[in-house]
Amino acid sequence: MHIAPQETRTEISALGEFGLIDLLTKNIELKNPSSLKGVGDDAAVLDHAGYQTLVSVDLLVEGVHFDLTYTPLKHLGYKAVAVNVSDIAAMNGEAHQIVVGLAASNRFPVEAIEEIYEGMRQACKKYNVDLVGGDTTSSTSGLFISVTVIGRAKPDEIVYRSGASVGDLLCVSGDLGSAYMGLLLLEREKAAFKANPNMQPDLEGYDYVLERQLKPEPRTDIVKILRDAGIKPTSMIDISDGLASEILHLCKASATGCRIYEDKLPFDPVMLNTADAFNMVPAVAALNGGEDYELLFTIKQTDFEKVRAIRGISIIGHITENIGHADMVTSDNQVIELTAQGWDALKG
Amino acid sequence: MHIAPQETRTEISALGEFGLIDLLTKNIELKNPSSLKGVGDDAAVLDHAGYQTLVSVDLLVEGVHFDLTYTPLKHLGYKAVAVNVSDIAAMNGEAHQIVVGLAASNRFPVEAIEEIYEGMRQACKKYNVDLVGGDTTSSTSGLFISVTVIGRAKPDEIVYRSGASVGDLLCVSGDLGSAYMGLLLLEREKAAFKANPNMQPDLEGYDYVLERQLKPEPRTDIVKILRDAGIKPTSMIDISDGLASEILHLCKASATGCRIYEDKLPFDPVMLNTADAFNMVPAVAALNGGEDYELLFTIKQTDFEKVRAIRGISIIGHITENIGHADMVTSDNQVIELTAQGWDALKG
Repeated sequence: MHIAPQETRTEISALGEFGLIDLLTKNIELKNPSSLKGVGDDAAVLDHAGYQTLVSVDLLVEGVHFDLTYTPLKHLGYKAVAVNVSDIAAMNGEAHQIVVGLAASNRFPVEAIEEIYEGMRQACKKYNVDLVGGDTTSSTSGLFISVTVIGRAKPDEIVYRSGASVGDLLCVSGDLGSAYMGLLLLEREKAAFKANPNMQPDLEGYDYVLERQLKPEPRTDIVKILRDAGIKPTSMIDISDGLASEILHLCKASATGCRIYEDKLPFDPVMLNTADAFNMVPAVAALNGGEDYELLFTIKQTDFEKVRAIRGISIIGHITENIGHADMVTSDNQVIELTAQGWDALKG
Repeated sequence: MHIAPQETRTEISALGEFGLIDLLTKNIELKNPSSLKGVGDDAAVLDHAGYQTLVSVDLLVEGVHFDLTYTPLKHLGYKAVAVNVSDIAAMNGEAHQIVVGLAASNRFPVEAIEEIYEGMRQACKKYNVDLVGGDTTSSTSGLFISVTVIGRAKPDEIVYRSGASVGDLLCVSGDLGSAYMGLLLLEREKAAFKANPNMQPDLEGYDYVLERQLKPEPRTDIVKILRDAGIKPTSMIDISDGLASEILHLCKASATGCRIYEDKLPFDPVMLNTADAFNMVPAVAALNGGEDYELLFTIKQTDFEKVRAIRGISIIGHITENIGHADMVTSDNQVIELTAQGWDALKG
């Protein structure tokens, strides 16, 4: 664990629940006018007047979603907020508030919890989100973080998974598979370290994929860019579990099929190098890897020229009749059926 | 654990995350017009038009907040919702939606998770709350439940902890200390069972205090009764940690002191019998015990006659100048200072 070489170690029990809450929340400033009252009462008070409210929750469980051998606590806090903000972006909305539930065993001193909160604070600052409430408690073992995000959108702006129609173009922001390659690297170095604790980690040149794994950034910028360009996606979802799984979700909700093209999938050069080192087909990492937190969305064909003009968005396929499945045309012109082998936290 | 004698045991991994979500959410109907879209997208969509939104989160952690030796899973699910609804009642609002995070180890089959959800469903039905989203995942050990509740109130109806003024009367709904006596009973029977697994539990006549512990009911009725009577509390909090701790919260937020009277504390006869059996002073159970989920609130003196006419509300003291502490006048006319020895989940 990264919390090992601490100069001071304060037991959580020495502060008690309310002391810990005071410590963690003393520097929290509310920035959104919609956050009327934050931490300090039985509930936070928000005003989303004129907007509809979006709510989503994500759990991060030690040993399932993160491994503290290689995940710095600050990054963990950051990621816990980021992945929730991503859910609101995927509705074409703006995240405004979060409430945090945190359970930690006595293995974690107060300083560790502060690190997690510091990471949350950084993500909140970057994405203009207010931390307005929480519950902090002990666990008998392990660390559990639950973040509930509250966002808003004007009623006519909200984009559901279910709005895709035949002929719509399927688009994805950024590049795919990098977060998964980062995970493979970290797992490899962990295994090497276990075998020989004197070894030095061999991570040079891999910064990009490591950062994609450890510090994902929700694509709130894409939401704004599309809005500014006058494009409203017909359906949207964020890529948390892997492209294949998310495509199947869109198709199921929209009652459509889909065809994508392997050649159109966007990859970063560092990701391609890493995939090469692991002898892995890049498309497999993209389809099944997960945690890219890019946006997957469909647009009307009439928006084609507008979208093509936007850097960082790739058109990877199109929506078809509901044929009961979704396909990928591979680089060598085979048609394969997509299956949801996305990362499944329940199989952890 | 109460889940032991199952006729069928389905491993969660056999269903996978999405299969489990489908199973758990297939019968969920949305009842509140404010719940526009529930489970099934990246976020739920709510419309609290004309109201302010209230948000609160509570964690329930196995081994800290509940013991499955004597807590039926259905009750656990019920309680997880109930304690959150109570937080919204404490703001003088109405709970409308919840989102649920649940992490369970492979010790729990699908049937166990269904039991928890069934309890949640019952509480949602009783309190007219919609389950609109969630995240279900595995844990390496133990069961963690995070419930975030979203409620609403008209802006001028919201009651904060901070509104108490000198001379206000301090009131409490229902009776106190019962949930704690229920806990002591359950712990006693657990210890006896450990010593002799053939023993029969001796719980006859204790139904009331057991139910108060295992199946707490939030006092949404009190919110309505006060409104109908034209009384708006000046401050309010729910009693989750024990009366003393909650009084100190109110006083701190309102920058006041407080004086209560032991003789005025409301007790149920079964609670008094149980306290007697445990050789415990009833006021101590009320002050330090916790989990009563009654409402503690202050009213203006001009509302005295109105409140006195309401059954099930006790006036237990009054707000004083900010003397830096809160006092209780005991039955034998001693004045003691209240200290926050409330149940502290961090001291587990």
